[in-house]
Amino acid sequence: MAGIFYGVGVGPGDPELLTLKAINAIKAADVIIAPRTEKKDESTAFTIAKPYIQENTQILELVFPMNYNAQALSEAWVNNKNTILGLLEAGKKVIFLTLGDPMLYSTYMYVFRLLEDCGHEIVNIPGVNSFCAIGNRLGVPLAEGGDILSIIPATIDEERLEQVLQVSDNVVLMKVYKNFAQIVDKLNKHGMTENAVMVSKCGLEGEEIFHDLSGAVNDQKVNYLSTILTKRSKVSKHALA
Amino acid sequence: MAGIFYGVGVGPGDPELLTLKAINAIKAADVIIAPRTEKKDESTAFTIAKPYIQENTQILELVFPMNYNAQALSEAWVNNKNTILGLLEAGKKVIFLTLGDPMLYSTYMYVFRLLEDCGHEIVNIPGVNSFCAIGNRLGVPLAEGGDILSIIPATIDEERLEQVLQVSDNVVLMKVYKNFAQIVDKLNKHGMTENAVMVSKCGLEGEEIFHDLSGAVNDQKVNYLSTILTKRSKVSKHALA
Repeated sequence: MAGIFYGVGVGPGDPELLTLKAINAIKAADVIIAPRTEKKDESTAFTIAKPYIQENTQILELVFPMNYNAQALSEAWVNNKNTILGLLEAGKKVIFLTLGDPMLYSTYMYVFRLLEDCGHEIVNIPGVNSFCAIGNRLGVPLAEGGDILSIIPATIDEERLEQVLQVSDNVVLMKVYKNFAQIVDKLNKHGMTENAVMVSKCGLEGEEIFHDLSGAVNDQKVNYLSTILTKRSKVSKHALA
Repeated sequence: MAGIFYGVGVGPGDPELLTLKAINAIKAADVIIAPRTEKKDESTAFTIAKPYIQENTQILELVFPMNYNAQALSEAWVNNKNTILGLLEAGKKVIFLTLGDPMLYSTYMYVFRLLEDCGHEIVNIPGVNSFCAIGNRLGVPLAEGGDILSIIPATIDEERLEQVLQVSDNVVLMKVYKNFAQIVDKLNKHGMTENAVMVSKCGLEGEEIFHDLSGAVNDQKVNYLSTILTKRSKVSKHALA
């Protein structure tokens, strides 16, 4: 009997923003893995999916350490792989939940790599990205016409950040909690503060929207689930051209 | 009685990839606008949503010319605005469907701008992007760790394309049918052909996947709904650093 492994994107936070395909997979699951990592994303994903999880579905807590190395798998990763393979060999439908989309900055990609050659069917189900949810929530276009949109993990080094801001019309900055002051400084330099908006915990309890980024950093610590959307203001565009 | 206007993202093609929120809005709609433009996206969006459209829902065909100008609205745009406002004033729930996500390269953004200050409630419902669907379909990560992902309309000028390829780790090229040969040439130059994959009509009837881009251009015309995903190969990354 052949099992199936599912990587399921649960979207940005609102349980109504799961796709029908994701909901159907969750409802039909035998086992749902509730991963524990340094990232808080995974437990959030579990909370979002909860309304669709059936009573007889097994919830399996597994610890996935962040130090994934395909060549030298740590003991925890080897154990997790064996546990999942055991379930698949018993013909189970096993689900790994991911916040947003499974193929964009997720832990799931490492789990997928671990299993992709194991001979069992794997189904990846896409999800709505947090930055799309934010754009729709605020009525702010992410990109139009000939705009270049760059998705940037704010943790990249300064020089690269500088370069990518220079060539992009619109940007999405993810993981901005780590070096928020530096990010605001760079956006200022590129005339991208005027149109900037930051959303923390979009669609989740405790959602906050900041139209003035300098206010955001003075008043409180920036939340882990915070994203900035911005675009070059028209004047600066001409000045740089 | 106050109407509500909905911008609904129907996702990339598979009717199961609509969100529950989108499905519920479509089921509850009084009127669904079936826009006609030069773009083929809109009629595709209608086909995707069809399984959820109720028998008593009115389908309204409107022509939205591409030459939108907020300062000098053409007669067609003024007429459409008045038609929609009339429906909203009659308390109707009116839906405008968009392929993918409403805030990313859509005609809907212009309709949204036309109506956003009209005093009626507007609800934007995000959708799954085509590039996420492609990444999940193929098991190809769009971005991981500190990767910069740039979404590029392939119609931008050569110099800008050159610049953005240079600073991005991973790219999504949209609308590649217009200048496909030039795009392949640039990807070659930046060591991004090796990892490239093009998908036409992802999740739709007639879906095609091309792992060899040179083969794709020789054999046939490139379809309108074609997207390229690629990343810099490791070797070139070092060579450029």
